[in-house]
Amino acid sequence: MTDLDADDPLARYRGLFVEAPGVGAYLDGNSLGRPLTASVERIGTFLRDEWGGRLIRGWDEGWLDLPLHIGDELGRAALGAAPGQVAIGDSTTVLLYKLVRAALDARPGRTEIVIDRDNFPTDRYVVEGIAADRGLTVRWVDTDATAGVTPDLVAMRVGPNTALTLFSSVAYRSGYIADVERITAIAHAAGALALWDLSHSAGVVPTSLDAWGVDLATGCGYKYLNGGPGAPAFLYVRQELQEHIRQPIQGWLGSRAPFEMGQGYTPAAGIRGMLSGTPPIVGMLAMQDMIALIDSVGLDAVRAKSVALTEYAIALCDELLPDARLASPRDSARRGGHVTIDHPRFAELMPVLWERGVIPDFRRPNGIRLGMSPLSTSFAEVELAVRTIAELLG
Amino acid sequence: MTDLDADDPLARYRGLFVEAPGVGAYLDGNSLGRPLTASVERIGTFLRDEWGGRLIRGWDEGWLDLPLHIGDELGRAALGAAPGQVAIGDSTTVLLYKLVRAALDARPGRTEIVIDRDNFPTDRYVVEGIAADRGLTVRWVDTDATAGVTPDLVAMRVGPNTALTLFSSVAYRSGYIADVERITAIAHAAGALALWDLSHSAGVVPTSLDAWGVDLATGCGYKYLNGGPGAPAFLYVRQELQEHIRQPIQGWLGSRAPFEMGQGYTPAAGIRGMLSGTPPIVGMLAMQDMIALIDSVGLDAVRAKSVALTEYAIALCDELLPDARLASPRDSARRGGHVTIDHPRFAELMPVLWERGVIPDFRRPNGIRLGMSPLSTSFAEVELAVRTIAELLG
Repeated sequence: MTDLDADDPLARYRGLFVEAPGVGAYLDGNSLGRPLTASVERIGTFLRDEWGGRLIRGWDEGWLDLPLHIGDELGRAALGAAPGQVAIGDSTTVLLYKLVRAALDARPGRTEIVIDRDNFPTDRYVVEGIAADRGLTVRWVDTDATAGVTPDLVAMRVGPNTALTLFSSVAYRSGYIADVERITAIAHAAGALALWDLSHSAGVVPTSLDAWGVDLATGCGYKYLNGGPGAPAFLYVRQELQEHIRQPIQGWLGSRAPFEMGQGYTPAAGIRGMLSGTPPIVGMLAMQDMIALIDSVGLDAVRAKSVALTEYAIALCDELLPDARLASPRDSARRGGHVTIDHPRFAELMPVLWERGVIPDFRRPNGIRLGMSPLSTSFAEVELAVRTIAELLG
Repeated sequence: MTDLDADDPLARYRGLFVEAPGVGAYLDGNSLGRPLTASVERIGTFLRDEWGGRLIRGWDEGWLDLPLHIGDELGRAALGAAPGQVAIGDSTTVLLYKLVRAALDARPGRTEIVIDRDNFPTDRYVVEGIAADRGLTVRWVDTDATAGVTPDLVAMRVGPNTALTLFSSVAYRSGYIADVERITAIAHAAGALALWDLSHSAGVVPTSLDAWGVDLATGCGYKYLNGGPGAPAFLYVRQELQEHIRQPIQGWLGSRAPFEMGQGYTPAAGIRGMLSGTPPIVGMLAMQDMIALIDSVGLDAVRAKSVALTEYAIALCDELLPDARLASPRDSARRGGHVTIDHPRFAELMPVLWERGVIPDFRRPNGIRLGMSPLSTSFAEVELAVRTIAELLG
C-alpha cells in the first residue's frame, strides 16, 4: 500500500466491491464498473423474494415507479437535477435516438445538427442515421483528439440553422471535460437545444444540469454507476421542456394510462412520457446501490480522489514511460476520471498485461486508457499498472 | 392434487421454479413468468464470478455473442427459426419500432400499415406514432374481441398500398391464435411485409417462422420465456430480408466493427445489424435457462399440457361460473395459453383474490385472464382459482 492509499479517506470503500481473483490492477472501471458485494446479495434476494415471491404484484408494489425513483436519486447524487427530470431505461443508444428526434421535432425548420468528430461512435452513428433519414446536415466540430470540444470550436459551427448540439461532457478517449455551461449557452444563443452525453462523467465529475441550463442529457449505467454489463441508461429532460417535446417510440409504459389499454396514445405527463417499453427492473438494482453509495460519500469527495488518482497516473507515466505521449489534458480542471497515453507498442502489450492481471482499456490505434473509479480503485493499482507497462516496454 | 396433476407427464418440472409464499394459484405466468431456482443461483454466480471476476474481459469471453447465441437457441427451441435470424435486446416496444421503420423503408412508396384494433396497446401506439410522423395511413382491422384476426378480415384491409401488416400471433386478451401462415401469405400476395408480435405465443404455442414465410417478428422475454421483470425482448428477421432492410437506431454494437470506433456507420452483416446499444447481459440469463428447459421438454409436450390446462379451465368455468362469459375461443386449435372470462363483478373481486393468494390477471373493463404457463402451472391451481372466483361471486 502506498502512502497515498494510507492517506486516502475513501480507501475503506474499496472493500465493498467484489474481489476479482488474479486481478492486480483494474483500470477499466470507467468502462465496466465493479459490482458492489451488496448488489450481488440484493439481486439474489430480489430474484427470489420479489420476482419469485411477489410475482406480477411487484409492478404495483414499486417496480413501475423504479425508473423515475432511481432517476431522482441519480439526479440528486450526481447530476445536479431536481426531481422529475431523470428516468432510467433502454440503452444509451436508444435514448440518444429518442432525444435527438425529440429535439429536432422541437426545432422545426432547422436543418443542422452539430457534433464533434471525436464523440463516441454511437453518438455519431445515431446522429448520422437520423440526419440521412430526414435530409439534415451534420456540422462537424473538428477537435484535437487529445483535448475536446471548446466553446470557441463550437461557436464556429453553431448558427441560425442549428437545431441541436450533441457533445460528451467528458471525452471517451482523452478524458477532456467540456465547458458544458458555456457550450450550452452558445447553443441557446443560436436558438438550438443542447444535448449532452454524460457517460464518462456521471458519478465521477460534479455536474449541475439544472444550474447549467442543459436541455437534454443521457448516459451509461454501467461505467461509474456500476450497474453491470448492459445495465440500462438514463436520460434527463429539463422540466420546462417536458411539455414541449415528444419522443418518437410511443410505447405503453410511456402512455398516460397504460393499464386502460385504450385506443390512441396520449403521452404520460412529465418525464414518464419518455419511457417506451417495460422497464428493465433487474438491471437497475446494482446502479441504485452505487448511486446510494455516491450520495453518501458525496460527489465532491469522489472527484477529489479522482483528481488525485489521475494526477498520480500522469506523474508515474512522466517518470516511467518517457517515450509514451500523454493524450489527456494536464490541467486537472479539464480532465475527467481517466487518462490516455499513446505508444506505438501498446497494442502488442495488451494481451500480456491481461495475463499479468493488469487491466486497462485500449483505444485504437495505440492508446492505453487508464480508467480510475474512485470508490474502487487504489493508488497501488495505478502504480502497478504503470510499472508493469514500463517493464514490458523494456 | 387432482388426477390431472397425477397423470401430468410435465408435473415434475413445477419443482424447478421458486415457490411464492402464500400464493395458492399463480395464473399470471403469461404476463410475468416465475423464476427458475437455477436462474437465481446462476445469476448470483454470474454477478460474482463473471461480472465481478472477469470484469471487462467478459465482453471478449462471450458476452458480445450472447444476444445472437441465445437468439439461435430461442429460434430452435420455440420459433422454428434456423440460426442467424434471431437476436435478443431492447424492449418489445423498441424492437417493434425498429422493425416497423425497417419494413417501411423496404417498401418505399407504399402508404399504409394494417393492424387490428385489439392488438396490444404498444403495437398500436408504435404504429400510430410512425404513421403520424411519416404521413402514412393506418388501416384498422376490426376484430371480434373474443376472437382475433382472421385471413378474411385481413384480406379486406390489405391492398396495393400496404407496406406492412402487424398482428399478434396470440391475442393478448382473448388468446385467439391467428393463422400466421395464411395471413402472411395474404400480405405477401399484396407485396407487403408481415411483422408478427409473438409475445403471447413464444415458448407455449408451436411456431414455424421459417416454414410459414414470416418476414419479421418480435416478442417479450418475460412471459413464457421467464426472463424476469423487464427482461429484454427478441426479434426475428428472415434471412433473405436481412441484406435488404436497415433499422433506424444506428448504434455502435450494430456496426460492422464496433471497436474500430471509426468514422461513419456501416451495419454489421446479418442479424447483428439489428442491434443498437450495449446488450443487456444480466437480463438475458434467466431467459436462456427457460429456453433450455423448453428445448429439453419439447414445445409439443408444452403445448399439449397448455391445451389440457385451458380446456380444464373452460370446463370449470362452464360448471362453476354460469353467469360469466367466455371471451376466448372454445376451439383448442385456435386458443393459446390463456383464457379470458368476463363478468361485471370481476373488477371488484381482484383485490380479494390477491388477498386469498389467487393471482390471475385483469383486463378492463371486466375480464379475468387465467394464464397458464405449462411448466410451472398445475391443474390444482386452475381449480383453486375458478372455485375461489365462484365462491366470491356467491
